[in-house]
This record gives sequence, C-alpha cells and structure tokens, in this order.
Amino acid sequence: MKSHIQRVELAKAYRLLNHGPTVLVSAQNNHDIDVMAAAWACALEFSPAKVTVVLDKSTKTRQIIEQNGYFALQVPCFAQLNMTYQLGSISQFEAPNKLEICGTQLFYLDDLKVPLVDGCIAWLICKVIPEPHNQQAHDLFIGSVVGAWADSRVFRDGHWYFADADKSLKSLHYIAGGTFYTIGDEVKADL
Amino acid sequence: MKSHIQRVELAKAYRLLNHGPTVLVSAQNNHDIDVMAAAWACALEFSPAKVTVVLDKSTKTRQIIEQNGYFALQVPCFAQLNMTYQLGSISQFEAPNKLEICGTQLFYLDDLKVPLVDGCIAWLICKVIPEPHNQQAHDLFIGSVVGAWADSRVFRDGHWYFADADKSLKSLHYIAGGTFYTIGDEVKADL
Repeated sequence: MKSHIQRVELAKAYRLLNHGPTVLVSAQNNHDIDVMAAAWACALEFSPAKVTVVLDKSTKTRQIIEQNGYFALQVPCFAQLNMTYQLGSISQFEAPNKLEICGTQLFYLDDLKVPLVDGCIAWLICKVIPEPHNQQAHDLFIGSVVGAWADSRVFRDGHWYFADADKSLKSLHYIAGGTFYTIGDEVKADL
Repeated sequence: MKSHIQRVELAKAYRLLNHGPTVLVSAQNNHDIDVMAAAWACALEFSPAKVTVVLDKSTKTRQIIEQNGYFALQVPCFAQLNMTYQLGSISQFEAPNKLEICGTQLFYLDDLKVPLVDGCIAWLICKVIPEPHNQQAHDLFIGSVVGAWADSRVFRDGHWYFADADKSLKSLHYIAGGTFYTIGDEVKADL
C-alpha cells in the first residue's frame, strides 16, 4: 500500500463525496473486471455510512455488481481527466480491452476482491444493499460503505486540503460532452 | 421575473446538478414555508428528468413536502454562503422566524405554489414520486422535474459559464462544519 493512502473512518466517509465529485465505479467477479465513470453518486447516510449510485442497465460494471454484490466508488483527480472521460464513454461490451485503452491501473486493499483505481484521491468499498425495485425502476443502487481510504496529500483528519496540494490532485465535476470543472477554493461560513 | 432568469429545457436540467453543488430545498403548504440546505441531492434520470434528495425526518421542510407533494431544488452561490449554512443549521421547529433570521427572500415562477429562493443560480421544481419505502427506510425522496430555470449570467444554452461570471455566482460544495468549496475551473477532456 502506498504510504499516502490512509484509512478514513467510516463515520467520515461521506466527506469524500459531499462536495459532489464525479466518481469511478469499479467491480470484479472472478476474472471479470470493469470500471466506469458516474456523475450520479451521492452520500445517503452518515453512520452506518451508505451511498447511492445510478448505474445504467447497459453497463458491464452494473452486470458485474449484480453478480458479485460489491463495488467501489473512487474520486478521480485532474491528472486523470482523460481517463475519467474515456471510462465513461467506452463500453467493455464493445471494447473488451477497455481498461487497457484507458490506461487504468488497479490495486487492492484489505484483502477485499474489489479492484481500486490507482491514482485516485479517495476510495470507498461498498456492499450492495439489495433493493430490487430501485435497481430495476430507477437504476439506483444503494451501498453500505465497508472501507474508506484517501490520499493523505489532499484528505487527512477528516478534511480535504485541496489548497495545499498540486492542482493535478483536485477532484473533477462533470457537466456534459467532455466538459468538467475542477473543485475550486475553500470558503468558510462566518456567522 | 428577473430578466436573467431563463427557462432550461427539462432534458438538460440534470446539468444544473451534475457537478454536485450543495442545494437549497424549499417547499410550501398553504402558509407553511420552509427552506433547508442539503448536500445530498443528485440527478437520477435524464429524460423524463428526475432527481433524488435526502431529507432527514427531523426537518420541517420534509414535513411540508410530505403534505404538499412538491419541492424545489435550487443551487445557491458564493454570495449566499452564510445564508446557505444558516438554512442548514437552524430548524424552523426551534426558530419559527428561521427564514427572516437567514434573510431568505422568496419568489414564484409559472404560477406554481413552490417558493423559490431569490439570488440562487438555478432552480428545479419537482413533484414527489411517492416511494414510501425509500422515504421511510433511507430518507430518500425521488422527484420528477416539472420546471427548470437558471441565471443566464452563469448558465445558458445548456452550459455553465462560471469562468465568465463574477466569483459571487459560483456554486457551493459543502464538506462539513461550515466549510465549503466553490466550483473551480472548466477543463475539457482531450482525446
């Protein structure tokens, strides 16, 4: 494990998603592995930590998650801009070597067989809470967060420190058509 | 209607939320009106446009939405930093004059009786799609978007133009404890 990857307590895992970054969703079932980009992921509960993510029925990642019951949400950064867009544009059903095309490197933590994307700034491993109606009617998956980690160069002690870090580590926020925003400046309410 | 408030076609309404801004949730039932801040709102479907939002059972806003069946999600901006934090911190159950304390001014569009917060940069009026299990078990509400508008100084022709506008109009992205981030720079994937 790289020294800058530090565990995040589950009660603070929501903070990794709270500012609304675009995420990468990864999953594995035996030798089947896929990663896709998703803008529609969100925290759902503080403790026990839960998340939602919308997964279209056309995606291989969803198929793997339905088979295996686990997925990871991870927060890609500006350095991964093109890879993030490619992971959201290419389907593994059409390009079996999708991950190679995208240059996506994977690693594992905690002996969990959920592949994580190297170079991201936060990772949440989640177990699907089966909700057949939500999954079928709304493509909406709910996950219980079973492990969370972050890159300590930008997230430590429960807080993001984007201002201290290189711009390449800023989170990405997708709009449409290949256009993203990076996260901006920290501002504090003053009451 | 102020001239800079322009209608957004419903098929592009998701773009108002896609970059993950913190939102204000407003609702009205007869003379009962409340507004709260929420970081956990997300697009759910492109067309017909749908959204999710997590509403804690302790909030008056949720109570009103359960009575009335409509809510608005709106995107506050940096100029509204302190108001946004206050709207998320003060309960109208404890402070009946919450909206006065927060300095929240309301207006209406399209003869819909859903109050909208003045000074925001985007507004989505939503009709609750009743999902009793999600509402009870997960505090998760699903809404069908029935009208969308944006401030044309920062969103027009389906795109955000934060770089062209004053910093005061940037969206806010909440972390915790009064700390937010503003949205940053536009970046484009280059494949």
